[in-house]
Amino acid sequence: MAPKGFATAGVRCGIKRIEGRKDLALIVAEKDAAVAGVFTTNMVKASCITLNQEHIKGGRARAVVINAGNANACNGERGMADARRTAALAAGVLGVPETSVFVASTGVIGHFLPMDKIEAGIADAAACLHGDDGHDAAEAIMTTDTFSKEIAVEFDLDGMTVRMGGMAKGSGMIEPNMATMLAFITTDAAVDSVLLQTMMNRVVRATFNAITVDGDTSTNDMCLVLANGIAGNPVVTDASSHDARIFEQALHDVCLFLAKEIARDGEGATKLVEIAVNNMTGAMRIAKTIANSPLVKTALFGNDPNWGRILAAAGRSGIPFDPDKVTITLAGTSVFAAGRPTAFDAAAVSAKMKAKELQIVVDGGQSGGETATVYTCDLSYDYVKINADYHT
Amino acid sequence: MAPKGFATAGVRCGIKRIEGRKDLALIVAEKDAAVAGVFTTNMVKASCITLNQEHIKGGRARAVVINAGNANACNGERGMADARRTAALAAGVLGVPETSVFVASTGVIGHFLPMDKIEAGIADAAACLHGDDGHDAAEAIMTTDTFSKEIAVEFDLDGMTVRMGGMAKGSGMIEPNMATMLAFITTDAAVDSVLLQTMMNRVVRATFNAITVDGDTSTNDMCLVLANGIAGNPVVTDASSHDARIFEQALHDVCLFLAKEIARDGEGATKLVEIAVNNMTGAMRIAKTIANSPLVKTALFGNDPNWGRILAAAGRSGIPFDPDKVTITLAGTSVFAAGRPTAFDAAAVSAKMKAKELQIVVDGGQSGGETATVYTCDLSYDYVKINADYHT
Repeated sequence: MAPKGFATAGVRCGIKRIEGRKDLALIVAEKDAAVAGVFTTNMVKASCITLNQEHIKGGRARAVVINAGNANACNGERGMADARRTAALAAGVLGVPETSVFVASTGVIGHFLPMDKIEAGIADAAACLHGDDGHDAAEAIMTTDTFSKEIAVEFDLDGMTVRMGGMAKGSGMIEPNMATMLAFITTDAAVDSVLLQTMMNRVVRATFNAITVDGDTSTNDMCLVLANGIAGNPVVTDASSHDARIFEQALHDVCLFLAKEIARDGEGATKLVEIAVNNMTGAMRIAKTIANSPLVKTALFGNDPNWGRILAAAGRSGIPFDPDKVTITLAGTSVFAAGRPTAFDAAAVSAKMKAKELQIVVDGGQSGGETATVYTCDLSYDYVKINADYHT
Repeated sequence: MAPKGFATAGVRCGIKRIEGRKDLALIVAEKDAAVAGVFTTNMVKASCITLNQEHIKGGRARAVVINAGNANACNGERGMADARRTAALAAGVLGVPETSVFVASTGVIGHFLPMDKIEAGIADAAACLHGDDGHDAAEAIMTTDTFSKEIAVEFDLDGMTVRMGGMAKGSGMIEPNMATMLAFITTDAAVDSVLLQTMMNRVVRATFNAITVDGDTSTNDMCLVLANGIAGNPVVTDASSHDARIFEQALHDVCLFLAKEIARDGEGATKLVEIAVNNMTGAMRIAKTIANSPLVKTALFGNDPNWGRILAAAGRSGIPFDPDKVTITLAGTSVFAAGRPTAFDAAAVSAKMKAKELQIVVDGGQSGGETATVYTCDLSYDYVKINADYHT
């Protein structure tokens, strides 16, 4: 089910400290692919982000080079020169324009990229490109992820079968400076690059921008989608067409799968938690405030049906609402309604909270209110361990 | 140095689970005191908050009743009736108007107050009121605080010696639902209640509103200041007078001391951390974002001079700035300047970070920028333990 006309590779070039771990990946499009991307909103941006924001203006991509173990952030002019040289090296080896090469880095902040290793890694990776699946590449972009995040789907556009694949890495680090999210989607469908960007912006809002592990936005976050058109479907250009809806739904499904995999594999996480806020103005902000509350996250780790922390987090979100109209459902049990806790069986709800996936629903009972869903994980001893037992 | 004309008591009435722990406090003013207060901004407010917001309209106070172990929040109409009855009981025993009695509760959410115990406790406390110090009362308002927070100061107004005392409780809980901050300041100075409220609002911004343990705002937060005028100074009414400046400085010093004590005693905290942000627009928001970052807080626990996490947290605060102009000083050592890490000795800085008090200074180098200081603590295993090892 791998999209046609894309080849990938993942190799070790020696950036990661742990021997044997792959740390450089290549994604190559056989022919020009329409490209859309979303990048970190952090004021402090890694050099690769700045470079890609230049390159994406052309709307076309031929290759993505990704290294793990070094974020190439806060490295000043030399950082920018190194990002540019990484693109140039890949362009030279692959015989494509430099501006069609995108660069992604993840890992420790404030250390210069080892350019000799990058150069050798790009040559190695180019020599072992293959089209069957992206597993090697998905492994090479991992930092402290405990599993690789990959998906491939197939669907029809205008009677033609098209394919879409995705890979992502999540929150964790061998040399921790911060969680760094990267996601790459490829498809052999033909889609206009402007429409692709519009759809991407919409999809990211409810997928990658709806996950949180610890509320800390990275300097290197990036999601790219490449569409090379090799499936042969008529180019999707009309945003209101049936094909556009089908394609966007597939893009949404792929991104949501990868986003949930990242939340599930959050640092120290023991469970994936879905927080749905319904019928409330500012639903996303309320959901994010609950999801980032250390008191809620530790209660989730402890399997404590602590509705008071959920309600209090909602109450400090800055969004006005009437607490007397709120209903909270935890792991399928109504625990709070009409301003008062229900007579729920705390031991039974606690037992249900031990599941690997858990849902919290907060309903504000406002007619005309909004709905938002956020995916997160619990806060465990291991989160503290991973992030404290380290020296820069 | 206890302010004249105030009596306090702290007794056990049986709300807290642990035998022998005091859980009910009384603060009584011999004569009408001007009162000013600030209350939680959480949308979900405990009944005592609603009651006090009614009573404070009169600008006068005779007594404060505080119970620990039960927050009387999310208890609907019965919660409101119980808060009102608590004030009425104290008013009856003390022979003062019901509207001059303020009520504060802290502890578990969603359980009704045991009114029989409250009634007996108020009678007991009234029988052992004393004027020397507020130590019993300061102990009775504690939940999982590891030490009581008290201070008394003396200063001159217009040639008259006046006194000011304060007590506060911090972030922790025997039956944890959320951190709950309470602070009570008494003074025998004579101050107009409107001016007192104005000064209080200003002082709270840089003291109690400048601390954070975990970013979770309680439903019960409250700070009250009572000024009974018994010292005999001419009533301070003119905001621009020398006396007003002296009084406000004393109020600031007392509040800052108590606020820092709360941050120092944050759940699981191993150190007090002061985060100063200078020469940046939105300095307070940047400082709070750094102070609440789980990645920064775990690095502080691990004594890791991780400037990357500090800078990245600033970068996601939503406030624009130029990273190339930022300087970060950690425990007295410049670790980042002009967009690049300095060549600092990581082991030496890490060793300095083991101190019980630590300062981080972030300077944005913007002329005309703002300055803000936030007090916080680190995020340790014990924070997770305290908040996860509990069942509602």
